[in-house]
Amino acid sequence: MNYKMVFYLLGQMLRVEGLLMLLPLACTWIYGEDTLTAFLIPIVLLVAIGTLLTFKMPKKNDIYAKEGFAVVGLSWILLSVFGALPFMISGAIPHFCDALFETVSGFTTTGASILTDIESLPYSILFWRSFTHWIGGMGVLVFTMAVLPKSNERSVRLMHVMRAEVPGPTVGKLVSRVKETARILYLIYIALTLIEAALLLLSGMPLFDALCNAFGTAGTGGFGIWNDSIAHYHSAYVDGVISVFMLLFSLNFNLFFLLLMRQFRTVAKNSELRWFLSIVALATAAIMIDTRHLYSGVSQTFRFSVFQVLSVISTSGFSTADFNQWPILSRSILVLLMFIGACAGSTGGGLKVGRIMLLMKTFVREVRLMLHPRSVNVIRTDGKRVDEETVRGTASYLIAYTFLVAASILLLAVFDNFDLVTNFTAVSACINNIGPGLSIVGPAGNYYLFTDASKLLLSFDMLAGRLELFPILMIFSPSTWRNN
Amino acid sequence: MNYKMVFYLLGQMLRVEGLLMLLPLACTWIYGEDTLTAFLIPIVLLVAIGTLLTFKMPKKNDIYAKEGFAVVGLSWILLSVFGALPFMISGAIPHFCDALFETVSGFTTTGASILTDIESLPYSILFWRSFTHWIGGMGVLVFTMAVLPKSNERSVRLMHVMRAEVPGPTVGKLVSRVKETARILYLIYIALTLIEAALLLLSGMPLFDALCNAFGTAGTGGFGIWNDSIAHYHSAYVDGVISVFMLLFSLNFNLFFLLLMRQFRTVAKNSELRWFLSIVALATAAIMIDTRHLYSGVSQTFRFSVFQVLSVISTSGFSTADFNQWPILSRSILVLLMFIGACAGSTGGGLKVGRIMLLMKTFVREVRLMLHPRSVNVIRTDGKRVDEETVRGTASYLIAYTFLVAASILLLAVFDNFDLVTNFTAVSACINNIGPGLSIVGPAGNYYLFTDASKLLLSFDMLAGRLELFPILMIFSPSTWRNN
Repeated sequence: MNYKMVFYLLGQMLRVEGLLMLLPLACTWIYGEDTLTAFLIPIVLLVAIGTLLTFKMPKKNDIYAKEGFAVVGLSWILLSVFGALPFMISGAIPHFCDALFETVSGFTTTGASILTDIESLPYSILFWRSFTHWIGGMGVLVFTMAVLPKSNERSVRLMHVMRAEVPGPTVGKLVSRVKETARILYLIYIALTLIEAALLLLSGMPLFDALCNAFGTAGTGGFGIWNDSIAHYHSAYVDGVISVFMLLFSLNFNLFFLLLMRQFRTVAKNSELRWFLSIVALATAAIMIDTRHLYSGVSQTFRFSVFQVLSVISTSGFSTADFNQWPILSRSILVLLMFIGACAGSTGGGLKVGRIMLLMKTFVREVRLMLHPRSVNVIRTDGKRVDEETVRGTASYLIAYTFLVAASILLLAVFDNFDLVTNFTAVSACINNIGPGLSIVGPAGNYYLFTDASKLLLSFDMLAGRLELFPILMIFSPSTWRNN
Repeated sequence: MNYKMVFYLLGQMLRVEGLLMLLPLACTWIYGEDTLTAFLIPIVLLVAIGTLLTFKMPKKNDIYAKEGFAVVGLSWILLSVFGALPFMISGAIPHFCDALFETVSGFTTTGASILTDIESLPYSILFWRSFTHWIGGMGVLVFTMAVLPKSNERSVRLMHVMRAEVPGPTVGKLVSRVKETARILYLIYIALTLIEAALLLLSGMPLFDALCNAFGTAGTGGFGIWNDSIAHYHSAYVDGVISVFMLLFSLNFNLFFLLLMRQFRTVAKNSELRWFLSIVALATAAIMIDTRHLYSGVSQTFRFSVFQVLSVISTSGFSTADFNQWPILSRSILVLLMFIGACAGSTGGGLKVGRIMLLMKTFVREVRLMLHPRSVNVIRTDGKRVDEETVRGTASYLIAYTFLVAASILLLAVFDNFDLVTNFTAVSACINNIGPGLSIVGPAGNYYLFTDASKLLLSFDMLAGRLELFPILMIFSPSTWRNN
């Protein structure tokens, strides 16, 4: 393990976080709030530690898979710990476990909250809270790439095993020109966020609200700035804009990249996109039929159904309706969507549509092999052959995922005494980075009732889900820390 | 597809079922009940159709994997349909879907029931109901082997991919001398059943009860003959005997085989056995701590805890306590045990301990490969190398299993309107062949409230779970039925 290089890269991350905190600090000044120290102290700490760690570039600056995973895992933990400081110092969330939960929920773009009265918080704190979603979403898109330019070929290939377990146009493009691609992804992300904020402004929404909601949508996070989330605005227009952008941020960003390159055909043929849209359409239709008695007229039913479907499958977690009160079929569909999640290469969480497709194909191949043992069976996606390493990696992913869900549900029952639906959906909502679940953690509910142990467990689940399990699980493997 | 051979083998199965029905017919005579036609009609039908189909052995009598799977899948369905006739004709369960559900539940050794007043049934019907468990248990042990002697080498290998996805001493022994091994397994099964019945008789239990309960334990089925299951006897001795035999019938039958061959060391070292016993011990200890306030004294708590743990992990489903009333941790543990299931090569259901072990090892290997991409990684169990086909097959099994559970829960919500816990545990209890779940389908509850569509779906799940998914799923693949 090249510890020097790991510290160096962590230092870079911390310094960036310090600089990003200047924005909420500006809010403090604009709104004349007394949250100056809440941001100043962490900024000074972050910049100081960051500068110290990056003072000298290590001579041996090549990093391998191990170092890459360690940096990714540790940086998310460290950024969350420091990111929790403004909440604690300002007194908004005085208790450490609570503040950490909220910050992890922010950076992992989960949107699960322990706050019971969001509206009482200062603007600057609300801004930071929503801003963590935006930073996290960008991090998911390019975090692993930030360490790639410094690494050698083998590590690049390995990081891509993690990032690119999913078929699509990702791999080729990214490996060839990592830095440029990262820059283009950044620009698409920023542009989409600004367009959404502008469209929200058109509804008469205040600038502050428009920005925060756009941050929440872009990261597919879901922190609202009102106790009743997006329902607060009572506006079909706002619901519509956010629905469209939840959909856009659920898509593989390489599709936007391809659109910019005028490869419309490739985009239209993308099978993950087609599957994703089909699932959204089917789920919306089923929920519309199931909830038609709750709303007046088809357009109303459509508005609330499609919003919740997109909110859950994109793993945003915004709400315009208390779906915990919906009939059992609708609730079952939403729980299923929680696990499906968004497309690969988006800011969304969950298992990912591409992965589900690949798992299905793996199963079909197994059946075929059983019937015709000598047949040659290659799995293809979008015409391209999927290599066996990816197939095996995806199956292993499902294994790890299943074990983590089961263990977490059991531990929640040890730490707390809530019903099975609460425990099951709390774990699902955290590991899939959605936010609200059902029962006690439903859209009208909250995570504040959990004990500290449960909050730490769920924070771990959020991180594990966000980082595609392996980097965070590897932190606990002794062989990660051994010197070669 | 060699249709002639498939029909021939199905004919054999049907004739055997007809002959087995002579036993409940004897009950009719012994107890002087009016269920004569209820058994006579199906017996005549079965023997007639069976004889017709087996009248001439087809010339081309070699069968391949396809035929093997088709025979296995179809025979369980056909046997269940004919097995439902006594219930319908006697008027005990007049409705077809109900009778089919109960019979499938019997043959698959699930033990889920739609009957609300078991005690009102005639002895002969009760006997047939419990006897289906015993037949099913034997079927699970040797069903696939019954078709093997007729098949060639390749098919033998393939059937073993299905049966032997799990490590252990199974494969070698069975392939070499299929017929003898089958006979020895039969004898062990019969001997254990008789010993249990004898031990139950010692408690003063009537012979009829002792036999029926032994049938239920041997098949890890769980149909009781009293409305309050085993709790009816109010006897720590009975609870103890049944607990011990639930444990024995959860073990890989090859272990008994090895014991007979005096290979004590091999048995003691068997890692699946060790894991299984550790899980039972841990779960019992945790539940004892969790339920200590419900029972008076340690021995009482132990008696009820260990019985339920063994009942669920062995996938029997007998009950001495209404665990639906237990604290949430105990209930969560039981749900987890539902999925773990018994050992491979036993009469129990579930994912199987050996498979869980293999899945864990697959995951650990993936982590190792990510950290050290060039390392050679072979998965071993009990010192033997597990081949990649088995590793891949097991991962595919988890995929198919997960999809089936998810789809079933969704469909239950379409067909019925029960709570999520009912739906989730009904599917878990059926697919893992346990019987009782939680909430409405808890030990004090029942499956009779479900609609016909749900009952058929759950019957399908029971069959799929029992036959390790693939044979039953293949029936729906058009390529199974195509001529080569």
